[in-house]
Amino acid sequence: MYYHDKRLQYPVTVEKPDPAFARMLQQAIGGVEGEIRVCMQYFFQAWGNRAPTTKYRDMLLHTATEEIGHIEMLATAVALNLDKAPTSLQEEGAADGIVGAVMGGGSAKGAIEGMIHKNLLSAGLAAMPVDSDGVPFNMSHIYASGNVAADMYCNVAAESTGRTLAVRLFNAAHDEGMKKMLHYMIARDTMHQEQWLAVIEELGKEASMPIPNSFPQENEDQQNNYNFYVTSLDGSYPEGRWTAGPSIDGKGEFTVFRNEPLGDEPVLGAARPDSGAQAEQIG
Amino acid sequence: MYYHDKRLQYPVTVEKPDPAFARMLQQAIGGVEGEIRVCMQYFFQAWGNRAPTTKYRDMLLHTATEEIGHIEMLATAVALNLDKAPTSLQEEGAADGIVGAVMGGGSAKGAIEGMIHKNLLSAGLAAMPVDSDGVPFNMSHIYASGNVAADMYCNVAAESTGRTLAVRLFNAAHDEGMKKMLHYMIARDTMHQEQWLAVIEELGKEASMPIPNSFPQENEDQQNNYNFYVTSLDGSYPEGRWTAGPSIDGKGEFTVFRNEPLGDEPVLGAARPDSGAQAEQIG
Amino acid sequence: MYYHDKRLQYPVTVEKPDPAFARMLQQAIGGVEGEIRVCMQYFFQAWGNRAPTTKYRDMLLHTATEEIGHIEMLATAVALNLDKAPTSLQEEGAADGIVGAVMGGGSAKGAIEGMIHKNLLSAGLAAMPVDSDGVPFNMSHIYASGNVAADMYCNVAAESTGRTLAVRLFNAAHDEGMKKMLHYMIARDTMHQEQWLAVIEELGKEASMPIPNSFPQENEDQQNNYNFYVTSLDGSYPEGRWTAGPSIDGKGEFTVFRNEPLGDEPVLGAARPDSGAQAEQIG
Amino acid sequence: MYYHDKRLQYPVTVEKPDPAFARMLQQAIGGVEGEIRVCMQYFFQAWGNRAPTTKYRDMLLHTATEEIGHIEMLATAVALNLDKAPTSLQEEGAADGIVGAVMGGGSAKGAIEGMIHKNLLSAGLAAMPVDSDGVPFNMSHIYASGNVAADMYCNVAAESTGRTLAVRLFNAAHDEGMKKMLHYMIARDTMHQEQWLAVIEELGKEASMPIPNSFPQENEDQQNNYNFYVTSLDGSYPEGRWTAGPSIDGKGEFTVFRNEPLGDEPVLGAARPDSGAQAEQIG
Amino acid sequence: MYYHDKRLQYPVTVEKPDPAFARMLQQAIGGVEGEIRVCMQYFFQAWGNRAPTTKYRDMLLHTATEEIGHIEMLATAVALNLDKAPTSLQEEGAADGIVGAVMGGGSAKGAIEGMIHKNLLSAGLAAMPVDSDGVPFNMSHIYASGNVAADMYCNVAAESTGRTLAVRLFNAAHDEGMKKMLHYMIARDTMHQEQWLAVIEELGKEASMPIPNSFPQENEDQQNNYNFYVTSLDGSYPEGRWTAGPSIDGKGEFTVFRNEPLGDEPVLGAARPDSGAQAEQIG
Amino acid sequence: MYYHDKRLQYPVTVEKPDPAFARMLQQAIGGVEGEIRVCMQYFFQAWGNRAPTTKYRDMLLHTATEEIGHIEMLATAVALNLDKAPTSLQEEGAADGIVGAVMGGGSAKGAIEGMIHKNLLSAGLAAMPVDSDGVPFNMSHIYASGNVAADMYCNVAAESTGRTLAVRLFNAAHDEGMKKMLHYMIARDTMHQEQWLAVIEELGKEASMPIPNSFPQENEDQQNNYNFYVTSLDGSYPEGRWTAGPSIDGKGEFTVFRNEPLGDEPVLGAARPDSGAQAEQIG
Repeated sequence: MYYHDKRLQYPVTVEKPDPAFARMLQQAIGGVEGEIRVCMQYFFQAWGNRAPTTKYRDMLLHTATEEIGHIEMLATAVALNLDKAPTSLQEEGAADGIVGAVMGGGSAKGAIEGMIHKNLLSAGLAAMPVDSDGVPFNMSHIYASGNVAADMYCNVAAESTGRTLAVRLFNAAHDEGMKKMLHYMIARDTMHQEQWLAVIEELGKEASMPIPNSFPQENEDQQNNYNFYVTSLDGSYPEGRWTAGPSIDGKGEFTVFRNEPLGDEPVLGAARPDSGAQAEQIG
Repeated sequence: MYYHDKRLQYPVTVEKPDPAFARMLQQAIGGVEGEIRVCMQYFFQAWGNRAPTTKYRDMLLHTATEEIGHIEMLATAVALNLDKAPTSLQEEGAADGIVGAVMGGGSAKGAIEGMIHKNLLSAGLAAMPVDSDGVPFNMSHIYASGNVAADMYCNVAAESTGRTLAVRLFNAAHDEGMKKMLHYMIARDTMHQEQWLAVIEELGKEASMPIPNSFPQENEDQQNNYNFYVTSLDGSYPEGRWTAGPSIDGKGEFTVFRNEPLGDEPVLGAARPDSGAQAEQIG
Repeated sequence: MYYHDKRLQYPVTVEKPDPAFARMLQQAIGGVEGEIRVCMQYFFQAWGNRAPTTKYRDMLLHTATEEIGHIEMLATAVALNLDKAPTSLQEEGAADGIVGAVMGGGSAKGAIEGMIHKNLLSAGLAAMPVDSDGVPFNMSHIYASGNVAADMYCNVAAESTGRTLAVRLFNAAHDEGMKKMLHYMIARDTMHQEQWLAVIEELGKEASMPIPNSFPQENEDQQNNYNFYVTSLDGSYPEGRWTAGPSIDGKGEFTVFRNEPLGDEPVLGAARPDSGAQAEQIG
Repeated sequence: MYYHDKRLQYPVTVEKPDPAFARMLQQAIGGVEGEIRVCMQYFFQAWGNRAPTTKYRDMLLHTATEEIGHIEMLATAVALNLDKAPTSLQEEGAADGIVGAVMGGGSAKGAIEGMIHKNLLSAGLAAMPVDSDGVPFNMSHIYASGNVAADMYCNVAAESTGRTLAVRLFNAAHDEGMKKMLHYMIARDTMHQEQWLAVIEELGKEASMPIPNSFPQENEDQQNNYNFYVTSLDGSYPEGRWTAGPSIDGKGEFTVFRNEPLGDEPVLGAARPDSGAQAEQIG
Repeated sequence: MYYHDKRLQYPVTVEKPDPAFARMLQQAIGGVEGEIRVCMQYFFQAWGNRAPTTKYRDMLLHTATEEIGHIEMLATAVALNLDKAPTSLQEEGAADGIVGAVMGGGSAKGAIEGMIHKNLLSAGLAAMPVDSDGVPFNMSHIYASGNVAADMYCNVAAESTGRTLAVRLFNAAHDEGMKKMLHYMIARDTMHQEQWLAVIEELGKEASMPIPNSFPQENEDQQNNYNFYVTSLDGSYPEGRWTAGPSIDGKGEFTVFRNEPLGDEPVLGAARPDSGAQAEQIG
Repeated sequence: MYYHDKRLQYPVTVEKPDPAFARMLQQAIGGVEGEIRVCMQYFFQAWGNRAPTTKYRDMLLHTATEEIGHIEMLATAVALNLDKAPTSLQEEGAADGIVGAVMGGGSAKGAIEGMIHKNLLSAGLAAMPVDSDGVPFNMSHIYASGNVAADMYCNVAAESTGRTLAVRLFNAAHDEGMKKMLHYMIARDTMHQEQWLAVIEELGKEASMPIPNSFPQENEDQQNNYNFYVTSLDGSYPEGRWTAGPSIDGKGEFTVFRNEPLGDEPVLGAARPDSGAQAEQIG
């Protein structure tokens, strides 16, 4: 179960509120690389973890709980950036002190057009669980596979795209308070990338591959598990670490296969009379 | 641009059609770990690849193209497993030769209840781009971040959960033809896991971390980039590779931090008169 | 604006309530071929119709309004089929008089497993705007393009798949009341197919093609507008009405083109330093 | 920011694991009336709360934090109910000790057909953020309007449908551990209904209406704000509290209006030449 | 069944077409607080209403039917506001007489950037069933729970957020015709809030609580149904109507509970060999 | 199975990169009228085709494969148009050589506000499978009904809305390279409209109607299959090809019916005690 402290994990300040930056920050809340995603992903991985030990479950709970505080920081940052956002399209309602208005030609209308409209119309100038184009987050992005090694790669993927996003936000930002908040979040993403890679190392890199390692590898097709398939018409292909030499897991040797059909043309045959097909399909 | 051969990549045969297995296979077509996902993910990564060399773009095209053939195999397998599926809830319409009917108590009705209904009602006994519960695939799952290292981890994640799914399908299957098809697909997933890890190795493991490595790491918070945050109430935590010793990227030292608020309670203040709030919020 | 009569468009009766058939009927409510779709599609086409005359707007309103009554009939049919559905997984709660229970081995549990669970858990044994697998209808399926000819083909498509669905439901049904209701709905789908084709005829078949016919056809690529592209590796292709002879619109002649690249390999070049790419991509 | 205790809010025990009940419980996790919804809804209402006082923000944080523990309990309950779920469709893989198998005719296949397939195929026998038909939760259901009174009614609505769901699950359950867990959750839903109604009372029932009460009510149409519109063809209507007497907010008198068009037929006129319409629409 | 009159419910006029306001209006059509939602919600509540009397079913039909006319008005308003919207990004195509162009710096391009692009590209300058950021309406927002009291609170919630939205649109509008239309819709939302509250009053406020009132309240946990849970780390909490005094339903006494775990740490144990987990999880 | 050539189907060049046009092009990739849709639709129709001959399956494969190349062209065009897009909201980061900046008032901020933000934040200045408002493509739009005639109308509908979209993009474009690319794609859409109509002709126009033609038409309601329903209150209706004369399929005669209820008021009766309804509903 859970507790809260109403203070923030890290300071969130905005000197010059900018509705356009509020829109960008929404990607870090409700984007597929955002904080709701990692928070819920780590929780569901923890809650469903089956193993002889509760060690990984425990660790996941620590970080999942940390991530709630990140959503909170970002939601606060969005609200602060919307502080002086325009609420009207009327000419006389010219915005005062809004970065957007200044940069976008001076009109409130210009500023409002750069916003996610739901931030105003649905939320009254507050954050929402949507991405930077206003698309709501969908929980199908919570990857918790029941395989701890697969989950760790999902987590590294999430934190890699997450830190990439945070860096893009840092590069786009002009407010010192926002840059400071982001320089903290980028650091946490570094740690989280490292943390999941550390678990992979603990699980034994080669020993853990291919995932899942509980499937007897002799049951997979031995002719097609370490060869790069070339699908170009002329048979050309780029050489690399993946076309020759020992495989990464040390269990095979990379080779190259010029792809061709190993099966026949499939023929499903005539449709059944009761299946709603055209008479011609029934034959 | 693209070409096709109407023969299949690998043989697909079904001795005893089973609508219940058709449902399971749908996860490998339209599930988030399925083949539409990897196919489209590799294509979009290739088409958007920006780099001094076209090497990775090229490689991605080979494998993306290969994956179309996997969707095709699975769609064929679904159609074959639906060959004798019931189309009626009428008692007298008892199924003949359907595995589902035999195992599910002998009634066509039992068999039909175990199916994705859209496979019959929308598709006339054919495959659809939906998962094993009938939920359509959503393209937000195509991860192509513009960062090649992040993309490679997304790909390892996709193939790890993908091979886990294929193994589960193999374990669930009873038909020899289906087991053979899956033993091939499991092998290809092995190669694809290896292939993306090979790219990561080529990119230089430590040098590539943290992702993105183009952000000057001195700009991130130096106090919070290699410490594990403990969020338990009593301060207990599980020790592991991530709590002490050199970080995986060799650029820091893992430590432990008992988490506490570093910021203050945020106060957004009164609502604006024109924002649709209650009068009490405006103050 | 709109009026209602609380009587139904056509009688809806169910002698033997069957939760399994209730599930099937949901496809005709909330499926992409269902009645919410055509109802809303015709309304949005009408409300957005721009033309020198209000004739098509008017006609669309007649049929859109008719379709509300179809959703109502189906929602009533679902509720009636759920009348004796089980609400408990307890053994002693054996269902009484439920078709599902009788056919599915006699247990209430068997019957409940064949249901859309939300029909019970979210709606208390009533219809919902979801398809036969419980997936909510999404309004992106409302096609109203602003081009009346394109819209008419969208409508023919909707009524063709809609009548196909209704026929499948008729074939699956065992209750006489349900068959009667469906024999009516199938008839209306016939009329609606005819009706939209009648508009296309009025618009002038050849003259209306290609859609939109307001684009000066000389502005489209004259080498590539009437030739069938062959993409098979060996150049083989199936001959048909589309490979030779005058085109359907009478404005061209069908030919065959063995496809090949007309463009070059695209090269996007190096990534920008501030774009969150890996350092290696920046070059 | 947030803390956790790895113990559960309330005991969760399952004597007889039942995959069919696991499916039902998913509605309370990822259904629109479920716990993810209320948890995130209260968080976003708190984080975006604008008011002269932080009182409501604070209160919302207490309950939002409580709700994380409810998701955790339910996720645990789902995993426990899946403990002996079948993983294979093979005949010889007859389930042992599974309630589902016993009740569903004795076959593992029968039991697996009653499951959300993703619980096995995507999650390896664990909970997911999906509803009881396997549809992922979508964050558009997080209502946080920026108006505290509107939000409170959204919360009463959420807890009313939530307690209705919990009661249905209680009625459906056969396991004593599950009934005990649910008798606790039903009690919490009672408190939460009361709690949000208490806020509405504090805000002043009549004074708070109509919502938002910050809009000068004289600006709304004074002829049409307290009259019940009759849309039946014959003008009949059901009498009730809403057709006569003082309005609930004490600011008007209920009357009845037999509806008729107050506007004219809208005419959008001809389409523009560059808008992709048919030539006939352009006129 | 249903009838229509091609005249509008209320006059809809636009003096100065503004594509930016068209975008805003879309929220009232396809937003979660919009008119499609209430229309369909009241219909599904009516069609599924189970009760000894058809009184509430009847009443719901009156208002659901009224709401179709509201969608129609808004769709007309969107089309009128798009009347002079730009269709080209070409410099020379400077818009003439468009409010957006004037206010946004004079360029057609500025005006087009403020639009939902699908309004032009998919609909040819007409309304669509999407929200103000272009996200299609999803029917999962139709709440019809089978419990009439829960439904009424869902309806109050819908009309409260709906009137809040209408007020925001009124505040943002500059066109007199639009303000007049909205002052009518705001009035109807007032009536509808009142109407659903009137039903709640008829159902007996205290007697109807907690919802559902058909569950014997002695079956819920008597220790946890009227106490406010404090989840702050330091035990502090905001006092209010919900922390002391009689509960709103008069059936309990509000108290305060400093939350702590009542359960133990859950242990799911080792994974099964056939479940696709890593070998290390199987133990 | 499939092959690729890394050269493009047709040349794609951009002289003046314009992020605003990149946004528009996204509709042709991930919009419901876009290329992913037709590509996947033709593939699923081919893979599930049941008929005595593989002729239509074969033909569909040719065109589905062609369409992959169209997605590729558009993805390339989007990336090229994003080449000089701004990545920062800082004033000093004024864009250089960007059309958007020049036209939008000269500021980088103006240009960035006109973009789909995910194109920058999620994809690093590359294409995504989303529409022109950033909404991801959803695979429920893949219509493959199992009825070849219904499918062909779905395809004509897709290509009609698709060509309408392409024409709108052509009209909006200012870059000669983009206009050239689109004049090619418009031509291909012409051919594809023709191609599906050619199949319909081959299937026999009248003989193929009503779809599905495998349902014995005498089983449908003979009183209601060729009459236009008038639902206007005053009985007025627009005369047209659909109100009199032989039906399009030659199997009936169009007539007009002034609609009225043919059924009674439906009465669902009291709710069950265990269904979570209010006590008042149970009666």
